[in-house]
Amino acid sequence: MNKTVGVLGGGQLGRMFAEAANRLNIKVLILDKENAPAKQILGTSNHIVGSFKDSHAIRQLAAECDVLTAEIEHIDTLVLEELTQSGVIFEPHWRTVATIQDKFDQKQHLKSAGIALADSISLDSGSVDELKRVAEVFDFPFMLKSRREAYDGRGNLPIMSKDDLDHGSDFCKDRKVYAERWAPFKAELAVMAVKTKDGVLSFPTVETVHENSICKLVYAPARNLSRATADKAQQLARKAVAAFEGKGVFGVEMFLLENDQLLINEIAPRPHNSGHYTIESCPISQYDAHLRAILDLPIPPSSLEMREPAVMLNILGSATGGSIDPFITAALSNPRTSIHLYGKGPATTPGRKMGHVTVTAETMAEAEQLIQPLIDVFDKHSGRKPASATPSRAKGGKEVPQIAVIMGSDSDLPTLAPGLTILDTFAIPYTVRITSAHRTPEVMASFVSTAASTGIRVIIAAAGGAAHLPGMAAAYTSLPVIGVPVKASSLDGQDSLYSIVQMPRGVPVATVAIGNSVNAALLAARILGVSDLRVRGLVEEYARKANEEVREKDKRLREGNWKSYMEKKG
Amino acid sequence: MNKTVGVLGGGQLGRMFAEAANRLNIKVLILDKENAPAKQILGTSNHIVGSFKDSHAIRQLAAECDVLTAEIEHIDTLVLEELTQSGVIFEPHWRTVATIQDKFDQKQHLKSAGIALADSISLDSGSVDELKRVAEVFDFPFMLKSRREAYDGRGNLPIMSKDDLDHGSDFCKDRKVYAERWAPFKAELAVMAVKTKDGVLSFPTVETVHENSICKLVYAPARNLSRATADKAQQLARKAVAAFEGKGVFGVEMFLLENDQLLINEIAPRPHNSGHYTIESCPISQYDAHLRAILDLPIPPSSLEMREPAVMLNILGSATGGSIDPFITAALSNPRTSIHLYGKGPATTPGRKMGHVTVTAETMAEAEQLIQPLIDVFDKHSGRKPASATPSRAKGGKEVPQIAVIMGSDSDLPTLAPGLTILDTFAIPYTVRITSAHRTPEVMASFVSTAASTGIRVIIAAAGGAAHLPGMAAAYTSLPVIGVPVKASSLDGQDSLYSIVQMPRGVPVATVAIGNSVNAALLAARILGVSDLRVRGLVEEYARKANEEVREKDKRLREGNWKSYMEKKG
Repeated sequence: MNKTVGVLGGGQLGRMFAEAANRLNIKVLILDKENAPAKQILGTSNHIVGSFKDSHAIRQLAAECDVLTAEIEHIDTLVLEELTQSGVIFEPHWRTVATIQDKFDQKQHLKSAGIALADSISLDSGSVDELKRVAEVFDFPFMLKSRREAYDGRGNLPIMSKDDLDHGSDFCKDRKVYAERWAPFKAELAVMAVKTKDGVLSFPTVETVHENSICKLVYAPARNLSRATADKAQQLARKAVAAFEGKGVFGVEMFLLENDQLLINEIAPRPHNSGHYTIESCPISQYDAHLRAILDLPIPPSSLEMREPAVMLNILGSATGGSIDPFITAALSNPRTSIHLYGKGPATTPGRKMGHVTVTAETMAEAEQLIQPLIDVFDKHSGRKPASATPSRAKGGKEVPQIAVIMGSDSDLPTLAPGLTILDTFAIPYTVRITSAHRTPEVMASFVSTAASTGIRVIIAAAGGAAHLPGMAAAYTSLPVIGVPVKASSLDGQDSLYSIVQMPRGVPVATVAIGNSVNAALLAARILGVSDLRVRGLVEEYARKANEEVREKDKRLREGNWKSYMEKKG
Repeated sequence: MNKTVGVLGGGQLGRMFAEAANRLNIKVLILDKENAPAKQILGTSNHIVGSFKDSHAIRQLAAECDVLTAEIEHIDTLVLEELTQSGVIFEPHWRTVATIQDKFDQKQHLKSAGIALADSISLDSGSVDELKRVAEVFDFPFMLKSRREAYDGRGNLPIMSKDDLDHGSDFCKDRKVYAERWAPFKAELAVMAVKTKDGVLSFPTVETVHENSICKLVYAPARNLSRATADKAQQLARKAVAAFEGKGVFGVEMFLLENDQLLINEIAPRPHNSGHYTIESCPISQYDAHLRAILDLPIPPSSLEMREPAVMLNILGSATGGSIDPFITAALSNPRTSIHLYGKGPATTPGRKMGHVTVTAETMAEAEQLIQPLIDVFDKHSGRKPASATPSRAKGGKEVPQIAVIMGSDSDLPTLAPGLTILDTFAIPYTVRITSAHRTPEVMASFVSTAASTGIRVIIAAAGGAAHLPGMAAAYTSLPVIGVPVKASSLDGQDSLYSIVQMPRGVPVATVAIGNSVNAALLAARILGVSDLRVRGLVEEYARKANEEVREKDKRLREGNWKSYMEKKG
């Protein structure tokens, strides 16, 4: 552990890396300008002042350190090659950085390793004629991308039609450019992969939302993604990162196409904006993981799992260069919000990353609701249009319902009323709906199948007679469904009970006594109480009161005699 | 936010405070010796070198800062009084620190505010005669406690019998001492309270385990504590802290007596070892809260709630002064373990706090199991006897069962087998027990009523005939109970079904179809899936496969005709 790590670059990524190193007593020296963000949280005066592209400065840093790494890929890899030959350790390997820093080379390398990604064509002069030939292969629209020095969307130009060709050709004049086939994605995903001496591990699959080509929001885990696709994204990220030499964390950005196919967008050989959430959400953050990987320290795979869903929102310099203080004021008052400011001084550059906030909650629906006020401030502050990716249901101040209470007919409502009263008493947010398995089957199917993604955790369904609603609901969701048999006009409720309880193997309904919605509500509370100690406490309190009531009655019975007791009871 | 905070003392508490301040871009200057732990993570050279008891150095610090605070109460309050009069802001108030730093004054102050705590008597000379008079009031055993400069149990002497009086009198010779009535506690609790300009907030109630008078472990939340007592402890802490002037975080240590009465043990006017867990477990840590409180920044109360249960273990210098490296090596490999080292260099002082680890998990039972290997290393390393507070069930490598499957008779086992197979397939750890409501009522009651505290989250109970087991289980726990009606020798299972499902209001049993243990297991999985996305994914996968199987059969039926299909099926 008695090692010194040198970092090329001391921005926010270097700063959060230094924070992780501080916690492990590992010395970090930064090569960057005076008072760079990372230098502000390191109490040493041995940093190197200079550019992380300056070969002399890199040599100076190497002389003081056991291991070198970088928080940015736009560095001088020639000097790293030379230093490596003389025994200096740089992670990940200089060849990895050299390949990745030229995006076309990066993609050729990935392609040769059999990784799925959009086709790309290297351009020579970028003349209009050459671009026309590209259009013959890719059709419109396609992308022009700068091969080097491009990040946060800088250096990307969409060519939507032949009208854009002149502009495209101008774009190619002062830089090396390649063309890429248009990827019609429905979502952007990212995975932080960790390459160690033993293999490649990965953090969960997250969803990134960009605005003006800059990362705005990260949803961890990705929303509305099947488990299979989330797993596939992690596998793809690990496979892609395995194709490179060296150790450390890699940020892997992906496109999710309409048909659920995944394409690699690009890879960063370092911690990444899409992995900030790991500081709060995972026992080991991406920065801790990077440190451990480059120093061959162990990384228990389960330490990369999430404690709680999280939403990360970047704090950017506004379009008008105004202060970020209004945002910080809002963030300080916002519940369950952790704030990270990067020490960059007053915000003067539009879009500059000044900090970020991470909101964590027990469910993604709650996290989305909690962060919404800050997204609103962000949008106002930035003068940008709100990102369409933010679901409308997260807007507004109402609590996210945790329980859906559904019935096939309003005639079931009187049966449900005592149970709803319990939910009110317990202050458990719920939604009540009339949706019939027989008369509105399509509404029922749609409501139930999307319930989990809106934050619903338990469904209570009441039905009488043929009583199909609870069972059909169970067929459309993986949430627990509680069935309340309602006594219909004949058969005394036996028909409803049998219809609800006698479900076939594979689709369970938790059935309670005929007409007993109180027990349905209490069972729902017990289910929430498995992970919510507030609710569990309320269930215990309810039982304690019931216990006292019976003891009180017994006491009164003992004090008088059974006849007077009966008379008093009336 | 453009404020500079000066801290008297730069040990681990100052260091973790500085970490929180760094994240909010708030400048911190430290008064302590060169290269003190807190100075190592602050990139400024404007710290003051000197002792936090040196009035000259305190004045120097005050001149550079907007607000002063302290990470330790053993400071020069006279100079703070003087500085306050000339407009310097020190939080919490100098009078608060002055009162608290003399433990007898602290307790008199609390007593006069109506706070429950053990009786104490101030001593003059501490002569044997005087101690005898104390014994007449308090009886044996009682405690002698140094009024000042006592922490981590230093300066405490138990007087067990009159044989200890001579020794006790010697103890009083070179210090000011008071005597305190013995508090026969069953557990030690702690609450971090936050005094702001508007009132007092609090973090959850935690349990502390001391060894040789030094804090070893913190369990957050406290184990085996009723919600009522946990709430009472938070209220007591808030009331106690409200009795002091000034703003900031206070560590409130309490005794829990056998009759569940709470007594304040002592209060620290600063962040505290028992609040380290908040870094991982809460959206706002105790350090962040202290910073916000002294700067009048907002603290949303729900940000003091826990994300996940946590166990904190201190890393102490060993009895032999050996290296802490073996412990760190073990901690790096331990799952879900966050490590904090304090930059104190090689461990040379026995019992010195060198760092800590925090393990978080979805349940306390899991967190206890995860941290056990590190407690074992700690015990080996420290040469101490293991703390008795560590429950034996946490030992060993087996997974903590999440589901208890219980039956009244082994004749129910064949009915349960298909459900148990599902739990095996889903890799959900469970325990199976035969425990009859009628033949072993006391075993059943004891098992079920302690199930939640051992990490069980759902109970599946099978029964036939009179079928009381599921309902009786539900009566003894607040966990969800799933009932499986078993078809007994007569009545075709109807008797079992009615006995299980027709529970009275207040005690729900989630009943599934007669004999359908598969649905019981799937329902249990759905319930776990409410908060465990791994299990929810498995439920979805199961449904997907069942869907495919039916489609496949339909396809085969369409390909042939119904007669050949029936023949093939046999």
